[in-house]
Amino acid sequence: MASLSFWFDFASTYSYPAAMRIEHRAEKRGVSIVWRPFLLGPIFADQGWRNSPFNIYPAKGRYMWRDMERLCAADGLPFVRPNPFPQNSLLAARVAIALEGDARSRFCRAIFDDEFGQGVSIDSADRIAGVLQDLDLPADTVARAGSEDVKSALRASVEEARGLGIFGAPSFTTPDGELFWGFDRLEAALDWACARA
Amino acid sequence: MASLSFWFDFASTYSYPAAMRIEHRAEKRGVSIVWRPFLLGPIFADQGWRNSPFNIYPAKGRYMWRDMERLCAADGLPFVRPNPFPQNSLLAARVAIALEGDARSRFCRAIFDDEFGQGVSIDSADRIAGVLQDLDLPADTVARAGSEDVKSALRASVEEARGLGIFGAPSFTTPDGELFWGFDRLEAALDWACARA
Repeated sequence: MASLSFWFDFASTYSYPAAMRIEHRAEKRGVSIVWRPFLLGPIFADQGWRNSPFNIYPAKGRYMWRDMERLCAADGLPFVRPNPFPQNSLLAARVAIALEGDARSRFCRAIFDDEFGQGVSIDSADRIAGVLQDLDLPADTVARAGSEDVKSALRASVEEARGLGIFGAPSFTTPDGELFWGFDRLEAALDWACARA
Repeated sequence: MASLSFWFDFASTYSYPAAMRIEHRAEKRGVSIVWRPFLLGPIFADQGWRNSPFNIYPAKGRYMWRDMERLCAADGLPFVRPNPFPQNSLLAARVAIALEGDARSRFCRAIFDDEFGQGVSIDSADRIAGVLQDLDLPADTVARAGSEDVKSALRASVEEARGLGIFGAPSFTTPDGELFWGFDRLEAALDWACARA
C-alpha cells in the first residue's frame, strides 16, 4: 500500500489545514498516512532563527495571516489567530509521540482544531489532559509524555527530519526519499506516493 | 474586464513557470495581465538578506531546485539551473520597463526561457540586444533602458511593490488590493480577479 509521512509542528499555521484534510484526501487515493510530529525550533535555529519567520519578517507574517484566512475560508475550516503566536508546542508534540496510530492522528486533529479553529492555548497539561479525556484516550498519556523514552523519541524525530532535508512544516516524505514542503504540495505528494507505490 | 498584476524578478526561479503559463491561464478566464517587472534585491535587503534566501539557507535551496525540476517536468517546461544563481537581472528589468504591452510580455518570456529553459546568462547587453532582434523589437531599447526615466520607473516599481506588501516573487495583486504570493497562488489569484471583476 502507498504510504506518505506527514511531518508537522503544532505551532505551524499551514500544518493546520494539512492535518484537517490529509486523511480525507489520502483515503480517496488509498494512501496510508504516517503522522510524524516534530519541532521546528531546532530546525529554525539551524537557519539562525530564534522565533517564527512570520514574526521575524513582518511583511511575510502579514501575508501569511491573510493567506490562512483565505485558505481556511475556501476549505470551510474555522480559523482563529492564536495568541500568542507561535504557541509552545513541546508538550503536545510529546503527547502525540506517546500515542500511536489512530489515537495519535485523532489527538493531533483535536489539538490543531483547539489552537487554530477555536483559539485555545495548547501549552497547558490540564488542557491537553482534557483533550485526551474528550477523545477517550488514556489519561496517563500526559505523564508518559514526560518520560525519557518519549523525550528522546521526539529528539530523534527532529534529527530524522533534519536528515531528510526538512526545513519547514508541513512537509511530506515518500518511501523513495522525495520531499514536498507546504500545504500547497499535499496533492503532489499524495500523487507521487500513489504513482510509485 | 478583470485584470491582475503579475510582479516578477527575472532572477526569481518560481517567476519562470509563472511567466510561461500566466497568459494561457488568464485567457481561459478572460483576465488581462499587467506585467510588472521589479527587483527583489531592495526588498530582500529590508529583510536583512544580501543574497537569495535559497543561497543563504542551503536546505531551502536544495529543496527549491528539486521542486523546480518536478514542477517544470509536470508542466512540460524545459529547466536548466542558471549558473551563477541568482543572475543579475537589473538590465533585463530596465529593458522590460522600457517596453510596453505585448512587446514587454514577449520580451519577458524570451528572457525567462533563455535563463531557465536554456541556461543562458541574461546580464549582458549583447545578449539582450540579440533577444530584442529575434523578437523584432526596437534595437535601441537597450540604450533607452539606461535613461533616467527608465531607471526611476524601475525604482518606482520597487517602491510600489513594497507598498503593496510584496516580499517575494512571483506575486499577484488585484485591483481591490489582494496580494497572492508564489507560483502556487496563480490559480487562486486569477479566480479572485475573475470573481470580483
